[in-house]
Parts: sequence; structure tokens; C-alpha cells
Amino acid sequence: MVDLVIVGSIALDTIETPFGSVKEVLGGSATHASIAASFFANPGIVGVVGEDFNHHDVFHSRDICTKGIKTEKGKTFRWSGYYEYDMNQAHTVQTQLNVFENFSPQLPDEYKDSKCVFLANIDPDLQLSVLEQMGNPLIIMDTMNYWIERKRDQLLDVIKKSNILLLNDAEARELFETTNLICAGRKGLELGLDAVVIKKGEHGVLLFTGDEMFLLPGYPLENVLDPTGAGDSFAGAFTGYMSRNDLTKENLRKAVVYGSAVASFNVEDFSFNNMNKIKLEDIEKRFREFKNMIKF
Amino acid sequence: MVDLVIVGSIALDTIETPFGSVKEVLGGSATHASIAASFFANPGIVGVVGEDFNHHDVFHSRDICTKGIKTEKGKTFRWSGYYEYDMNQAHTVQTQLNVFENFSPQLPDEYKDSKCVFLANIDPDLQLSVLEQMGNPLIIMDTMNYWIERKRDQLLDVIKKSNILLLNDAEARELFETTNLICAGRKGLELGLDAVVIKKGEHGVLLFTGDEMFLLPGYPLENVLDPTGAGDSFAGAFTGYMSRNDLTKENLRKAVVYGSAVASFNVEDFSFNNMNKIKLEDIEKRFREFKNMIKF
Repeated sequence: MVDLVIVGSIALDTIETPFGSVKEVLGGSATHASIAASFFANPGIVGVVGEDFNHHDVFHSRDICTKGIKTEKGKTFRWSGYYEYDMNQAHTVQTQLNVFENFSPQLPDEYKDSKCVFLANIDPDLQLSVLEQMGNPLIIMDTMNYWIERKRDQLLDVIKKSNILLLNDAEARELFETTNLICAGRKGLELGLDAVVIKKGEHGVLLFTGDEMFLLPGYPLENVLDPTGAGDSFAGAFTGYMSRNDLTKENLRKAVVYGSAVASFNVEDFSFNNMNKIKLEDIEKRFREFKNMIKF
Repeated sequence: MVDLVIVGSIALDTIETPFGSVKEVLGGSATHASIAASFFANPGIVGVVGEDFNHHDVFHSRDICTKGIKTEKGKTFRWSGYYEYDMNQAHTVQTQLNVFENFSPQLPDEYKDSKCVFLANIDPDLQLSVLEQMGNPLIIMDTMNYWIERKRDQLLDVIKKSNILLLNDAEARELFETTNLICAGRKGLELGLDAVVIKKGEHGVLLFTGDEMFLLPGYPLENVLDPTGAGDSFAGAFTGYMSRNDLTKENLRKAVVYGSAVASFNVEDFSFNNMNKIKLEDIEKRFREFKNMIKF
């Protein structure tokens, strides 16, 4: 049985950065998140692919359950984009939704009583439909500016049902209508969330829980090759850790550190090249390095 | 006797931010740094003012020695500028160098054997002339893009004589000709520095020592009224702490935290309004808050 359900996109990405390029490699929010989560839990992925998709083996090699992946007639979702030297900003060249356009997440029966669900960035209506199919899981969610601008009310409904909201700094400012991230975090907690996690890319992460804040700087990297999926890898590792540990402030802090460590590996190479090489002990090493680098 | 000599500008600042404005208030790098340092040490300030300057009492109220302040015929250095909502960026409206144009730092005899000197952002030739007047102090220095672009060789001479270099992220990238701050820090150490401190504004500080890095996030602030002097306050508190403690990695890390704590108070109000109100125990409280906010 899976202990973590991850719902989101499965894509084929074409990416160019100042350090290289790749064509139609495996990507998508649910993909990045489930691979990152698989170091900590047994995730099951829920998504849709086209008949041209032939990457199931990547999931199987990491013991990720693919029963929730539906194959539809047509082509897999494709995204292409590029980064300049400021890798905080992705520039989209083309989005072909293909089969993802009519995605309607259906959970296999054995997923419905999972302890934890990660709702990656998809239409808030679909996020709600996932929650309606589940018992009483720990709910961790992500979103993006597109839904903040177009489906704000539905998005707020999902947030009010969730335990933990993950979003980046720009999204936090937009959603909570403030330039100040500390105000944004507080406003998130006022909606009833147990925790708000604001990701600041290379500048680290802010975690808000009750009346406490946790600050983690970014893991210092000399070589960032491809930032695609950094946020989703963070979310996956964070979620994977939380799916197996109680919802306490201490565990939330550790989950942020694991999330940051895994994301740091993800961006050091294109697609999943680095994730295929590392082991849990490499992640644990970065966890300890973080501890040493912040100590005073 | 002073245990810390601080050399830099003394100015009258006219500042506008989205939250208010002030006219001809006390400012300048040496001023901000010496007031911040005075919580930790007995600084003596070296600078030049015009006959219109009547703020000596501010220094005296904080036991800062003013024997090194020379009064010249003419007007005090004036700077005016404004900030928009992105307070990381100061926009200069006008710079009137006035008596500062011919500043030639002369150290009172009792300053020459001080244990520590902070060379704030001034012409590298003047920074060198200060070092020639002193015995064998711990040398902490700052600089800015203006000197990196115009007096690079002289600046490198000062750096090679110094123990600790403080600079912000943009300056570090420009000086060491790399987009990556970790590379920049390493290149600084290769010049023979004991430590390189890269300030990232609200995103915190990176400290490079030998083969170790220290990462400190920015102190989370809900209300930033005026960022003028944040970097110099950081430098002053950092320098004040180091002037009374051995040059070890542990002390350098603590100095970074004290610097960040004091800078966080400085930006919460205009000019020195907040610095006049706080006590060392308030700084110690933020030091402990930092410890709690980064713990995992």
C-alpha cells in the first residue's frame, strides 16, 4: 500500500539553460515530487499520459506505484522553456497540454485511505475532487500564479481544507496581497493552515508554524545546471518525510531541510540525471552539512 | 584609549522612502558603523565635517571618541536619495561631496596602536594611507562598485593587506568576476584574506573562512522604514565584536549574527532613531531569536 498520494502533471520537457539543453525528457510536477518523495516513503502517483509515454520504468525503478497513471488517447503534456543566467526565472517557449487538458484525477481504491496526499500545482477544482475521494489524510498543497489569478475562491477553499501550503515568494505576495513575506506567512496561518512554507529559490525557505518561524538559507551550490523541478523536488521530499512522521514543529523543520537538500541535488544536473545517482546517505550528508553551516 | 578605529564618511542625508522622509539627518558610513560598534567596543571615528556640523553630541552620547573628526572650512558632505518598495536599491538624487572631496585621514596618535581598524567605503588610496599610519591591527574593510571599477589595482592592494573583506552580493560578483557567490567567496580567500563576508540584504549573509561556509538568513522584519546604513551598521557591530574577541571561526560567526541583529534594528526606523532606543540586551535578544529560528 502506498503511504503518500501525489497528484499533478507528468510531462515531457524540452529545456535550454546557459549550460546545455535536453529534449523531451521526463518532467512534470508529480514526476519530480514522486521521485524526490521515494527516498522517504512509498508514493503512488496520479496523473495522465498519452500513448507516446514510455517512462514507466523510471517510476518502477524507484518503487513508485503507477496504478494511478491513466493512459489516454493522444500525446503526453509537453513543456518547453529556457533559462538565462538568472536561473530563478523560467521563460516558457511553448506549452502543449495535450491529454493533460482533460485530466480528471481518479484514485485507485488502495490509494484512498493513504495517510498523506500532495496536491501539486493543478486546477483547484481538481485538487478538491481528489480530497473528496480520500479519507482523512494529511493534506499538503502547492499552487501557482495562474490559479491565484483565475480561481482564487476555489483555491482558498482548497487551502482551508489543507494542513500545509507550499508556495514560492512571488506567489505568496500575490495570494496574500502583501509585499512582506512575514505578513504573507501569518495570513496563511489565519486561514487555518498548520504550516506555511515559502520557498525563495537560492535564498532559502521560510516556515511558519503557530507563532514560530523557521529560517533555512539555500544550500550553497557552485554549479546549477537546470532549476526545472526544484520546487517540486523540495515538495516531494518534504511530503515524503512528513508522510512518515508526526505533524510537529520539529518534524516540519526537518522536512524543510530534507526538501532543500533533495532540491539541491536535482538542480545540479538536467532532468533526473542526478536523482538516479544519489542515495539516502547523500541526502543525509547534506542534512548534516546544513547543520554545520548554520551553527553559531 | 580606543580599541577600534573607524574611517569613513560623515554625512547629512536627505532620504525618502514609501514610509516617510527625513531632511539632513546624520548619516555616512563611519557614523553608522561607529554607532553600531559602540554597543561592543570603544570606537574612535576618523572623518571630516564642515563648519555647519553640529552632531558631535550624538557620538559623545555613545562614548565614541571624536578626536579623529577634523572640521574643515566649507560644508559637510550631503547625500540625498530615495527608495521604492524594493528597498534593496537606493536611488541617488544628489551627492554634494563638499569637504569630503579632499578628505585625507589623519589618525590621532592615541589611535595608531589600536587593535582593530574598520576601513569603510572610501578611496582605496586613503584606505592604504590609514594602514601606513597604524601598527599591526586586525584590518576589516568594505568597498563599493565605484572603486571596483575605477581603482581596482589599489583596491586589491588594500584587500591583500586586510584580514576581513565585507561586501554586498553585487560587489562580490563584480570584484571577483563571477555570477556565483560561492566562487566569489573562494576567490577572496585566495587573495590571502582570513574571511570574506558577503551581505545579501534581506536574504542574509554568507561567511567564508578557510574551507568552511557559514550561512545566516536575514532577520525577518515586518516593517522596514529606511534601509540607509544597514550595511554600515552590520559592519560596525561585526567589527566592534571582533575588536574584542580572537580571530576564530566561532567568533566570526557570532560577529555575523551580531552584525545582522544590529542592522535589523537600524532599518526599522529612519537615521539613528532606533539605535538611540535599543540596548545591548535588545541585541542579545535578537541573537537568541536567531538561534531559535534556525534550529533543527
